[in-house]
Amino acid sequence: MVTAKVISIGDEILIGQIVNTNASYINDKLFSIGVQVKKVVTIGDNREDLIHELHDSMQNYDITLITGGLGPTHDDITKPILVEFFNDELVLDEEVLKKVRSIFESRNVLMPETNVGQAMKPSRSKVIWNDNGTAPGIYMEEEGRVFIAMPGVPFEMKAMMENSVLSLLKAKFLQNQEYVLKNKTLLTTGIGESFLFESIGNLDELLKGQKMAFLPSPYGVRLRIDVKTPSTEEADSEISRIEKELYSKVGEYIYGENDDLLEKTVGDLLRNKGLTLATAESCTGGFISQRITDISGSSEYFKGGVISYSNEAKENLINVNKDTLMKYGAVSSETAVEMAVGVRKLMKAEVGISATGIAGPTGATETKPVGLTYIAISIGDKVYSKELFLGDNRHRNRIRAAQAALNMLRKELLLV
Amino acid sequence: MVTAKVISIGDEILIGQIVNTNASYINDKLFSIGVQVKKVVTIGDNREDLIHELHDSMQNYDITLITGGLGPTHDDITKPILVEFFNDELVLDEEVLKKVRSIFESRNVLMPETNVGQAMKPSRSKVIWNDNGTAPGIYMEEEGRVFIAMPGVPFEMKAMMENSVLSLLKAKFLQNQEYVLKNKTLLTTGIGESFLFESIGNLDELLKGQKMAFLPSPYGVRLRIDVKTPSTEEADSEISRIEKELYSKVGEYIYGENDDLLEKTVGDLLRNKGLTLATAESCTGGFISQRITDISGSSEYFKGGVISYSNEAKENLINVNKDTLMKYGAVSSETAVEMAVGVRKLMKAEVGISATGIAGPTGATETKPVGLTYIAISIGDKVYSKELFLGDNRHRNRIRAAQAALNMLRKELLLV
Repeated sequence: MVTAKVISIGDEILIGQIVNTNASYINDKLFSIGVQVKKVVTIGDNREDLIHELHDSMQNYDITLITGGLGPTHDDITKPILVEFFNDELVLDEEVLKKVRSIFESRNVLMPETNVGQAMKPSRSKVIWNDNGTAPGIYMEEEGRVFIAMPGVPFEMKAMMENSVLSLLKAKFLQNQEYVLKNKTLLTTGIGESFLFESIGNLDELLKGQKMAFLPSPYGVRLRIDVKTPSTEEADSEISRIEKELYSKVGEYIYGENDDLLEKTVGDLLRNKGLTLATAESCTGGFISQRITDISGSSEYFKGGVISYSNEAKENLINVNKDTLMKYGAVSSETAVEMAVGVRKLMKAEVGISATGIAGPTGATETKPVGLTYIAISIGDKVYSKELFLGDNRHRNRIRAAQAALNMLRKELLLV
Repeated sequence: MVTAKVISIGDEILIGQIVNTNASYINDKLFSIGVQVKKVVTIGDNREDLIHELHDSMQNYDITLITGGLGPTHDDITKPILVEFFNDELVLDEEVLKKVRSIFESRNVLMPETNVGQAMKPSRSKVIWNDNGTAPGIYMEEEGRVFIAMPGVPFEMKAMMENSVLSLLKAKFLQNQEYVLKNKTLLTTGIGESFLFESIGNLDELLKGQKMAFLPSPYGVRLRIDVKTPSTEEADSEISRIEKELYSKVGEYIYGENDDLLEKTVGDLLRNKGLTLATAESCTGGFISQRITDISGSSEYFKGGVISYSNEAKENLINVNKDTLMKYGAVSSETAVEMAVGVRKLMKAEVGISATGIAGPTGATETKPVGLTYIAISIGDKVYSKELFLGDNRHRNRIRAAQAALNMLRKELLLV
């Protein structure tokens, strides 16, 4: 089995200021292509420690991935130490320099001289392109071992992994493997981990020696199926067998697979059906519209929204009846329904969606607990609402409410 | 300086299934009592790897903290390997056995035989009481080195750290410490890492032997000052000296310190000045209002907002002039200004803020690149806008635009 070590460089991890999410991302990705991460090490911006780790890597691991220590400032040590350790020298990469310059030009500013250093690379290395920043990555092979250095900034590192690193590693190590590893993730929402577990039933019977992980987050629980078989055909058939059973048991909670984004799925449905959307948000405070508009091209189907945080805004802007607010309260099925209808009319959209709830920690009453939330949808001649109890954490409540709203919209659009 | 290594044992970390938050918790606690964590290692449930790490610890670190591998199941390897490595033997601790039994009794269930193993400890070790579970921790001293093993379950480990481990370590190592460690983080936004670096100038002159880290993210760059001095007074005075110089050089970019949240700062300013806010968002699509409303109690000062994603919504809802849209376009200073004024009036708020821009990747024109963004503020008799060039990544653009808007609002509110 191909083995790997991940080295994270950063004092901010060692003093507990940030959590090492880079490592868990990398571990997950390497696992998915069949590389076994045997060790993860975090060290400071410190020459001796990095050299010690490079020695250990030369002796023990096929692949070493390093994150951090690649920016333009003084505490960036990875490149000089790679050069020292492998007896190499730094050379200027003209193409990288050109690219770094153009990034600064596009922002209408002169490139600081410190950034020239980012275009220097070890002479025996290959550059890994950075689509999201100025510090390129480095790929080196020494005596059959592969060393890859990437910046510590998560979104820069992630783009490099997906656009270059994983395919480089597959090409180098995983061409002639005797087994196939495959995985697929089903995305569920609206059901807790233990209920999901119970609904699925006997795991051994389902998995027949394959593996599955339950990965919970405020957005829902992801189910990752991991199979290992002699051939691709068998892998595909095992995955589809397990997937089918999962759909039959908990299908109503599954909203997508792998990297699907609920906001993208909803957007595609709206576009395909030629419908436009408007949002009226209270407790979610813009979370739903923010997710909808995070998708490029959403202006085609998203007309706009209202954050009717005050009763005044609910009445005056989207025409919620004063009596409704008085009689049932701002957090009620009745108000949610009028919000959805009102914003749809105001924005001249074909679909209106609304959310109103008690996000917490304050605002609860004797009959209405923190976490009580109503989502409503208005479409065609139809309008209906759903009542949810989301728990007592404000931040999580808002995430869950927006997620529930988008999923309700997805289900509705599938019926249209 | 007292040095430490943290070893996390767990396959679920190595395959990227969970993030190693235990390590960041431990690092933070050790840092706070003046212990320098020099390395964090994650390994699997594997004898050779743990023995390798114990050797390394004996050679290099005063303290080694191990989490994981202490439960009752087959893959719990820490205890037998400590016994093997230190040539010790397992003995039964009657008091622990009594306690484990009583835990099961209190749940009205018989203790499974596998749990007897939890009452076994290396003969030369001390037991660390577990207030939240059945697996006790282990404290061993060998040749002046301290080894502490704790369960991997976060709340069990945390209670042990706070109730026992930190005081044990202080008593052993930190009675007569000759120095104090302190840190402070300044939060900047609106300036890139390399420009910040250049604006600050000569770091050696500034730091005089102390340390500073640049920690970039899409929200801005955090500057963490770390000082080490003989006394608390000197630590405070060094931090305030460095801080003062940073304020004098890059103060215009600093919006807060340590764990400050910009949306909280803005909210506090609004509340203290008795002002209400309304938002009109185009490119940010709800990001600004979502952040504002993420703060509990924001309904006191946040009236509501409009996501005027379409020109129609800009015209009809917040009264942006059709001619303005025609002549200058939706992404223009003129439109931003009319949006801020319009939403303020619509929501009857004292302050209006707006954002309009080309989030990308599409939508650029010959004169307007992706990332071009206008923020406007309307307050009292005043209205003004700011032009920003934020780069070419849609997701990051939106984060940066919302951050810039909130910071512009913060600065304005300080003047009121």
